[in-house]
Amino acid sequence: MERLNRNYTLMTDAYELFMSDSYVKTKKGVEGVFDVFYRVVPNGGGYTVMAGVDKVIEYVENLKFTEEDIEYFRNSGYNFSEEFLDYLKNFKFTGDIYAIPDGTPVFPNEPLITVKAPLIEAQIVETALLSFVNGAMEHATGARRIIEATPKNVPVMEFGARRADGPEAAIDSSIYGIMAGCAGTSNVLAARMNNMKALGTMAHSFVETFDSEYEAFLTFALDHPDNATLLVDTYDTLRIGIPNAIKVFNYMKEHGIRTDKIGIRIDSGDLAYLSKEARKMLDEAGFPQAKICLSNGLTAETIESLINQGACFDSLGVGDNISKPAGRMGAVYKEVAVIENGQVIPKIKVSGDVIKIVNPDFKDLYRAYDKETGYAVADVMCSRGKDIDGRKLEIVSLKDFIKSTTLNNVELKRLQKPIFLDGKLVYENPTLLEKKAYCESQMKTLYPEVKRTLNPHEYYVDGTPEYVNMKHEMIKKMREQKWERQDVN
Amino acid sequence: MERLNRNYTLMTDAYELFMSDSYVKTKKGVEGVFDVFYRVVPNGGGYTVMAGVDKVIEYVENLKFTEEDIEYFRNSGYNFSEEFLDYLKNFKFTGDIYAIPDGTPVFPNEPLITVKAPLIEAQIVETALLSFVNGAMEHATGARRIIEATPKNVPVMEFGARRADGPEAAIDSSIYGIMAGCAGTSNVLAARMNNMKALGTMAHSFVETFDSEYEAFLTFALDHPDNATLLVDTYDTLRIGIPNAIKVFNYMKEHGIRTDKIGIRIDSGDLAYLSKEARKMLDEAGFPQAKICLSNGLTAETIESLINQGACFDSLGVGDNISKPAGRMGAVYKEVAVIENGQVIPKIKVSGDVIKIVNPDFKDLYRAYDKETGYAVADVMCSRGKDIDGRKLEIVSLKDFIKSTTLNNVELKRLQKPIFLDGKLVYENPTLLEKKAYCESQMKTLYPEVKRTLNPHEYYVDGTPEYVNMKHEMIKKMREQKWERQDVN
Repeated sequence: MERLNRNYTLMTDAYELFMSDSYVKTKKGVEGVFDVFYRVVPNGGGYTVMAGVDKVIEYVENLKFTEEDIEYFRNSGYNFSEEFLDYLKNFKFTGDIYAIPDGTPVFPNEPLITVKAPLIEAQIVETALLSFVNGAMEHATGARRIIEATPKNVPVMEFGARRADGPEAAIDSSIYGIMAGCAGTSNVLAARMNNMKALGTMAHSFVETFDSEYEAFLTFALDHPDNATLLVDTYDTLRIGIPNAIKVFNYMKEHGIRTDKIGIRIDSGDLAYLSKEARKMLDEAGFPQAKICLSNGLTAETIESLINQGACFDSLGVGDNISKPAGRMGAVYKEVAVIENGQVIPKIKVSGDVIKIVNPDFKDLYRAYDKETGYAVADVMCSRGKDIDGRKLEIVSLKDFIKSTTLNNVELKRLQKPIFLDGKLVYENPTLLEKKAYCESQMKTLYPEVKRTLNPHEYYVDGTPEYVNMKHEMIKKMREQKWERQDVN
Repeated sequence: MERLNRNYTLMTDAYELFMSDSYVKTKKGVEGVFDVFYRVVPNGGGYTVMAGVDKVIEYVENLKFTEEDIEYFRNSGYNFSEEFLDYLKNFKFTGDIYAIPDGTPVFPNEPLITVKAPLIEAQIVETALLSFVNGAMEHATGARRIIEATPKNVPVMEFGARRADGPEAAIDSSIYGIMAGCAGTSNVLAARMNNMKALGTMAHSFVETFDSEYEAFLTFALDHPDNATLLVDTYDTLRIGIPNAIKVFNYMKEHGIRTDKIGIRIDSGDLAYLSKEARKMLDEAGFPQAKICLSNGLTAETIESLINQGACFDSLGVGDNISKPAGRMGAVYKEVAVIENGQVIPKIKVSGDVIKIVNPDFKDLYRAYDKETGYAVADVMCSRGKDIDGRKLEIVSLKDFIKSTTLNNVELKRLQKPIFLDGKLVYENPTLLEKKAYCESQMKTLYPEVKRTLNPHEYYVDGTPEYVNMKHEMIKKMREQKWERQDVN
């Protein structure tokens, strides 16, 4: 099954087309270079997880305006020039796209995706690209925060479909959740798309449907001895639910039914207290193998609190905080250069707000790893094609030009991979499980201080001295030129 | 174009299937009644706006497991019984669905959708229904908050596609945004799906691409004199942007080009101050007809603040706070009754947390309108088929049984409409513009106090005395019976 199930060529903001209608007449042969990046890690975290490249690939490969689309434009008051409508008839993507692979931990203000293409092509893809990346990264980042907070031997199940922003967002929540480390998903459609089995237990409604909780539990356990996880909080977890579950486990044991896959789920109340009491009760009843699954609006913070309180759990179910995590990525798509007659002209948007100043130019982006420890120490950008040397590398803050550091003997790896070159797909999209393994390996290269939930250390995203000087000069020049610009006529 | 572009039959949590596998053997002929409702108005508001019924209709009409789906279940370790797999082969929805129409303002704890169907059918649709309603209502509610804060003569344009959770959520943001009162959307795909023209201006990249801002403005204005809205904040709004815009407007006037559709957009900085200065500059230059469009993360609160400060604006562009508003709906799907041998048996889930106690039974839900003012004064629920009389109607709080009120001479309107009866679609889904007009008319029936942004008045969602007594008795009985239940064997 495909990831995208509609042709999204029209998924563009109208202004892309209004601008393109002018470009078709005035800027033929001019290319633009645009970066996708985000400015602030959402929800107080120290990192985000790249995601959405899979959808970008499918989208770009299928870009095409149909005859009906052109007719719609002609008949709906857009007043586009015939030249532009003609252009749209043969529209396809002919440029280059570079992207940081799905599953890579990434940081503010670095180019996650770079599009180098004729201006119109580069503009028309903006809206869809941003909606892919913003959505996907929120799920992946939300999930990874949960995974980092959870002990390695405790599987996390993604349960978020019902709270997602529609079914496609639910699929994304499952897929990017698994990529970021979840053991599986409850979403059958997403599981099927990836040839996996979906996971789940039972709902409160099942318990209520039967005349008694015990009858519901026994029915379920006898039908599903390989997955006999009983939801014990419908009436009263400790006084009713767990005793009924134990009674069922005893019944199974007495009747020679396997009890190696039994367990309980607690979905309300004080999970720390209830899970410790539950563990005691199950152990004392002779079922130390019975697993405890916890769920109910879990966040990285509540999971860490559960651990601190000695809560007992063998698996977690997480919904909202993967399918609709707090905080927005807010990734943007900004022009960083134009290429005219083979010459790259860096561009910058100078805002009164320092955080909104763009990192100009068509760039290379490297991650520097300490050769001894393997830890990532900084990401470094420079203008495209400049040689940089990891044996002794000075890096300068992009926000505060006074701050600089020298890195000695680091290994430099280029973060972006070519995805499309001259409109041709040149990248093989890894499978979901490959991405999951890759994400796990990359997360291990981050210092624990960058990954911690509370007040994480800010990872360096810096520039080479030459790059930062160039940016600095551009800002100065821009401020000087502004007054002249007004007078151009 | 269809609203859904995939068959979402598999969009269900695995536990629905595990439970159904048991129901097929043990609960044949038993129907369940389930309510979709939410518990708390998100983001501190006083109301939400119903949405998503359109998607529910398409989804339910297309419910079908394919041969390949059955094979997937058989080969992926689910261990379903052959009886259940056989059942799935002929699965279709045969029950009843009642829903409050899209566009209706709705309140916590009332049944937005009620599904009455054989248990398995009612369970399998849960996940998809919730994801439709949760997503759709967040967009509609987010948009309506903005609309309520905005003066009636100021159109709001939905600009949120790029920040949406993927392109389908972007379409929803546009469609439910328009339903809730937006004048239009920037999203070309969503506009085309509704035979509308998409709206937009220009991006900062357009200004940067040209050698000067003036050249960019002039090019755009001459190409689009019917939509010459110039983005003035790329370099410096007051010192550069607006003077350049005025120069272009003068050029147009001098060359006999229409200047009735000119304007500027400000997308950063202090919008209150800048817009007032901009208005003065445009007026003094002889362009009082030039419109001012404001955008940049606008919320209901910031719009009200702009108004209080005397900001000057003719239209607003709103993105994030429609496509990804703060706060989650968190709608849930709970069993409220089972029907066995023609007998309706109300069900209740009693939680330690009072807010999580379900309103039991297959119900009718009415909105009571003051006959003189037309204002909605309360929503009232009762067990299905009970007569209630608006001439003198006592209503009792569902949370605090001591609180009661008597309504005199109110008009009662049933809020839910039948959508499916015996699996047949019996509802004609209104057009988007019909829904928009309906939403506008319904919002007018709410007291301003319920709609205000800060600390809104809590609208009454109550029950008839008989209904509340029944609920009360069920809770008492449940608490008494709990201990017995443990001993059922």
